[in-house]
Amino acid sequence: MGRLLVSFVVCVPERFDFMKQQAIGVFDSGVGGLTVCRELIRSLPKEQLIYLGDTARVPYGTKSPATVTQYALEAAEFLCQQGVKLLVVACNTASAVALPKLRETFKLPVIGVLEPGARAAIASGDGRIGVVGTEGTINSGSYERALRSIAPEAAVFSAACPLFVPLAEEGWAAHRVARQIAGEYLAPLLAARIDTLVLGCTHYPLLQDAIRAVVGAEVRLVDSAAATAIEVADLLEEADLSADRLLGAQRFFVTDVPTRFKRIGAGFLGAELQSVEQVHIG
Amino acid sequence: MGRLLVSFVVCVPERFDFMKQQAIGVFDSGVGGLTVCRELIRSLPKEQLIYLGDTARVPYGTKSPATVTQYALEAAEFLCQQGVKLLVVACNTASAVALPKLRETFKLPVIGVLEPGARAAIASGDGRIGVVGTEGTINSGSYERALRSIAPEAAVFSAACPLFVPLAEEGWAAHRVARQIAGEYLAPLLAARIDTLVLGCTHYPLLQDAIRAVVGAEVRLVDSAAATAIEVADLLEEADLSADRLLGAQRFFVTDVPTRFKRIGAGFLGAELQSVEQVHIG
Repeated sequence: MGRLLVSFVVCVPERFDFMKQQAIGVFDSGVGGLTVCRELIRSLPKEQLIYLGDTARVPYGTKSPATVTQYALEAAEFLCQQGVKLLVVACNTASAVALPKLRETFKLPVIGVLEPGARAAIASGDGRIGVVGTEGTINSGSYERALRSIAPEAAVFSAACPLFVPLAEEGWAAHRVARQIAGEYLAPLLAARIDTLVLGCTHYPLLQDAIRAVVGAEVRLVDSAAATAIEVADLLEEADLSADRLLGAQRFFVTDVPTRFKRIGAGFLGAELQSVEQVHIG
Repeated sequence: MGRLLVSFVVCVPERFDFMKQQAIGVFDSGVGGLTVCRELIRSLPKEQLIYLGDTARVPYGTKSPATVTQYALEAAEFLCQQGVKLLVVACNTASAVALPKLRETFKLPVIGVLEPGARAAIASGDGRIGVVGTEGTINSGSYERALRSIAPEAAVFSAACPLFVPLAEEGWAAHRVARQIAGEYLAPLLAARIDTLVLGCTHYPLLQDAIRAVVGAEVRLVDSAAATAIEVADLLEEADLSADRLLGAQRFFVTDVPTRFKRIGAGFLGAELQSVEQVHIG
């Protein structure tokens, strides 16, 4: 009995300290989630991130809920094997369709980008909310449900913008065609007099200038990456899981060869990607 | 001895007849290869096609040669299990990187879209050849090698056009931005005074009008889908494997749910897709 008590007294702080030192696991279908990493690094500079981009099967946005859920489970499994204290689903499509299954399967906190984005959209504005995202995210109706569950009276207008991801990935964000394409996609939302626009895809912060040029200064843009980083910081603080000292370097993994990811990822992360390793999952 | 001879006399024609009645297997990463099916149906109306679109892992064009080869082997394996007499790789990226491995692995004729396209480009024109394709196809240098192996003196100019596939898939082929984007991609090829342009991606026939508007009437466009259908017809004829009567209905398989494939595939096939089944491969 005395021995057990000693074990308890000694082990609990050790276990907690060990947990604090674990990394935050982040995954996305490709480079998009690096905009979430950028915000996490800005908000939580002591933490270590372990990132997985499922580049062998990118994109998720045009694929079915069942396929996206299967891929998300495999990505999460890989991150859990690396030892993480928290899982961030840095992909709106996977957040929209796979979150319940991920929370049911893995015994650690799982944060998607969708709920933080929805809460930030409701927090200000007059409740005329536009949402832009991939075909998968918009077709799932998840933003609409998340927004309505917080503010049942909110008027929500959605538009799938399938060309935004390739435009961002190909470095055409500042090109005049990006603005033209944004103009076409956003016209119905402007006609509906939205006051807030949720960028419901982690690629879209790169197109912020083109989108801003179309919607004007009046419409508030909500970047779900920034909103997610704030919720992650709050959750770590509440659970007493924040790193109490500077942890190791960020680690980046991809499921295809890293060449393209390294080349275009820098624009998403806002910094060079020092080392990227290829792994096989699924 | 007499018995063996009888077996031989009886069995050989039976085997040949059986082979003639088998389908042509066709695969692509998604809907693009349906432009090849359209040409095959036009040239070989008696044949049955069994098509596989690897929509759970589309696109191949931004992925590495090793990953594309692995996916191509799995797609070919599935088609061979259905019983096919010939395999058509209706994807330029897979044709560019996976053909040797496919020919080594499967004991049946394998035709890619790249070599027929290259031969058709050399067959006319003055040898100033432009090639457009995905990042994967262009980076592989395969068209350049195929063209030079036929005509070592040919001047070849290549351009990756990564936005063409999403433009075609999203139904923006006739949009003014498609023409603007084509204008930017093709400017270096026009500056090089090409006389022939190979559409080195099975999606690109859908953008033919936008491309024609940019290159003008002088430049000859080579559609590798049409060139491939002619080579398939020739090969079946030479090997005495052509269907001698009308075979069954075309069969379409995909690796993700068929909704999107059915919706956008009709524009590629030039006809409605009656039945599309989902299968798991890999």
